[in-house]
Amino acid sequence: MDPIAIHKTLRGKIFIGAKARIKTSEDLATLYTPGVAEPCKLIAKDRSLAYDYTMKGNAVAIVTDGTRVLGLGDIGPEAALPVMEGKALIMQQFAGIDAFPICLATKDEDEIVRTVKAISPGFGAINLEDIETPKVFRIEKRLTEELNIPVFHDDQHGTAMVTLAGLYNALKATGRADGLGVKIGIVGAGSAGYAIAKLLHAAGFCDIVVFDSSGAIHAGRAGLEEYKKPLAAFNASGFTGTLAGFKGADVLISAASPGALPHETIRAMRKPNIVFAMANPVPEISLDEARELSIDVFGTGRSDYPNQINNSVCFPGFLRALLDLRVKKITDVMKIAAAKGIAESVKKPTRDRIVPDAFDKKVLKNIVRRVSEAV
Amino acid sequence: MDPIAIHKTLRGKIFIGAKARIKTSEDLATLYTPGVAEPCKLIAKDRSLAYDYTMKGNAVAIVTDGTRVLGLGDIGPEAALPVMEGKALIMQQFAGIDAFPICLATKDEDEIVRTVKAISPGFGAINLEDIETPKVFRIEKRLTEELNIPVFHDDQHGTAMVTLAGLYNALKATGRADGLGVKIGIVGAGSAGYAIAKLLHAAGFCDIVVFDSSGAIHAGRAGLEEYKKPLAAFNASGFTGTLAGFKGADVLISAASPGALPHETIRAMRKPNIVFAMANPVPEISLDEARELSIDVFGTGRSDYPNQINNSVCFPGFLRALLDLRVKKITDVMKIAAAKGIAESVKKPTRDRIVPDAFDKKVLKNIVRRVSEAV
Repeated sequence: MDPIAIHKTLRGKIFIGAKARIKTSEDLATLYTPGVAEPCKLIAKDRSLAYDYTMKGNAVAIVTDGTRVLGLGDIGPEAALPVMEGKALIMQQFAGIDAFPICLATKDEDEIVRTVKAISPGFGAINLEDIETPKVFRIEKRLTEELNIPVFHDDQHGTAMVTLAGLYNALKATGRADGLGVKIGIVGAGSAGYAIAKLLHAAGFCDIVVFDSSGAIHAGRAGLEEYKKPLAAFNASGFTGTLAGFKGADVLISAASPGALPHETIRAMRKPNIVFAMANPVPEISLDEARELSIDVFGTGRSDYPNQINNSVCFPGFLRALLDLRVKKITDVMKIAAAKGIAESVKKPTRDRIVPDAFDKKVLKNIVRRVSEAV
Repeated sequence: MDPIAIHKTLRGKIFIGAKARIKTSEDLATLYTPGVAEPCKLIAKDRSLAYDYTMKGNAVAIVTDGTRVLGLGDIGPEAALPVMEGKALIMQQFAGIDAFPICLATKDEDEIVRTVKAISPGFGAINLEDIETPKVFRIEKRLTEELNIPVFHDDQHGTAMVTLAGLYNALKATGRADGLGVKIGIVGAGSAGYAIAKLLHAAGFCDIVVFDSSGAIHAGRAGLEEYKKPLAAFNASGFTGTLAGFKGADVLISAASPGALPHETIRAMRKPNIVFAMANPVPEISLDEARELSIDVFGTGRSDYPNQINNSVCFPGFLRALLDLRVKKITDVMKIAAAKGIAESVKKPTRDRIVPDAFDKKVLKNIVRRVSEAV
């Protein structure tokens, strides 16, 4: 169906529903004044009781400033709203979460931090969305420090968790379930590349070279941005060259743009090789090229290719777990647990099936179970 | 039913509902990526199109800092949430509005203004709620000037509209439909008293004496607060005494606290007299006292007394009108029109029936029709 027509018909993909109906003045007196004063008084004495008497514990703010929406760039807060509504719709349908879009009329880092803190009392979690890097890294860090509800950045961590899940299964499907000694190249140091590198490292992969537009990120590189310095420490082999000169990788993960993955780099990989080409909507490598290059496990963001590495499989379950467990800060341990929950949802991983289907209800349960075991 | 038990069972009186269901990956591709990019691109070119392709045009932020909740005072943002949810529930049930509570972790005027401006792009209107006076007057004024969506303060204007509606019908029921020469005393200069005085004056009543804890507000009073100065101009008779010495009123409206209305003032009124004792939950005058004092038309905020002067009869319809008409700034003309819509919903006003029932569906239609004729 035509997306424009359906958006015009719906005029909003979510709505506010009523959990109770007011039929009599007695109902009004119970759900509103004067009866409502009773739960208010309890919460006034102990504000943690908001989790028992209000929607707080199931409410998520989807916060954006509209600066990096899909592949469209800085389109502003109003234009970002259809994406945020879509995200809220998915959270409701797949995980029963009450998520509400908060589209900000400011791009200023301090102002965004202040605003999210100001609106936080009514929410059980914050989901940062489509905010430009590296600003969003600082916003996430500051909010995580200053709030006592979890702050999730799906563009980073959702992508990283699904990628790690896909990697677990790709290694399994190619007979290297332990992952020891695997050499990984990551292309792009935006939200996705940055978070993938960090999560893979936290999960125990210790030979990771990250490439940005200036080549390999390594400790000796002049003028390296502050936030990229942790990535330099993952470069165990001390590789300092360009992506085209990068040889012998087992895994290449690109979260960049079409053309960013040189064929010679893929040809120089060790076999069996794993390539995730995750640019959206057009991947770095097409399915035809992947076949021509005889890539053993090939994943992309596309739903019409095998092995779709898609956040939708992760964020509803992960947020469900955060809310159910009343998590205050997200840790790497939780993210790795979630990745394992996603991975194990594919019973027998094959080269063409490393990620579960977004509609598979097992995934949510597995993520919630794994994360609850990990906290 | 016990309000605490029902609030605990519900854990939130509203939820986020899905207007569409994602069943296939084609649905996902239409309602989310990549299809969602199409409406985003249209809105990026012309952000007023957010009204056509998103929930903006039906979305209201119910904003509070929790400083003046019901009669409970400054109980904080978490404890205010049950009230805000109740308000959202009423807006949904009575007017199909998507209202969402925004409970603020700040009491600072500038910060509140900044925050509301920052979150405004996703909303079609702002409803300020239970914020202390006089701060809320300044917040309302600044936001009205700086935003191009309407900013409504129900504690002021909702109360004022219902009061004006009740007054129209009370005058009709006592044979003075024209209202000419009517002398009015208003007790209390908080949100309600302040706004009632201003709206009654805008509606053409020109002999209004407002009393605060220091007595009558008049132009010559030393140390009169800035925001009360407009009220001094309504004191046509130049009365400078105390409430106990105020004689010959046709109408007394009190939005203060129990005991604030001296019986001698009521006994000194002209007959037939009209007294609205609107303190909540305990009115200034009980029904027994009102009978003893032989008040001709007696109104309160209580649902178990006749003539309940209740905001619930007004705000759903008024906000519906603001959204449907895409109003940018609220004017007195709109408020007077809404009051007339409420008043005419009572077909034949009597001394015991001056305000329509909150469950009467005609009220919403009449408010919307009257306001749309007035803009």
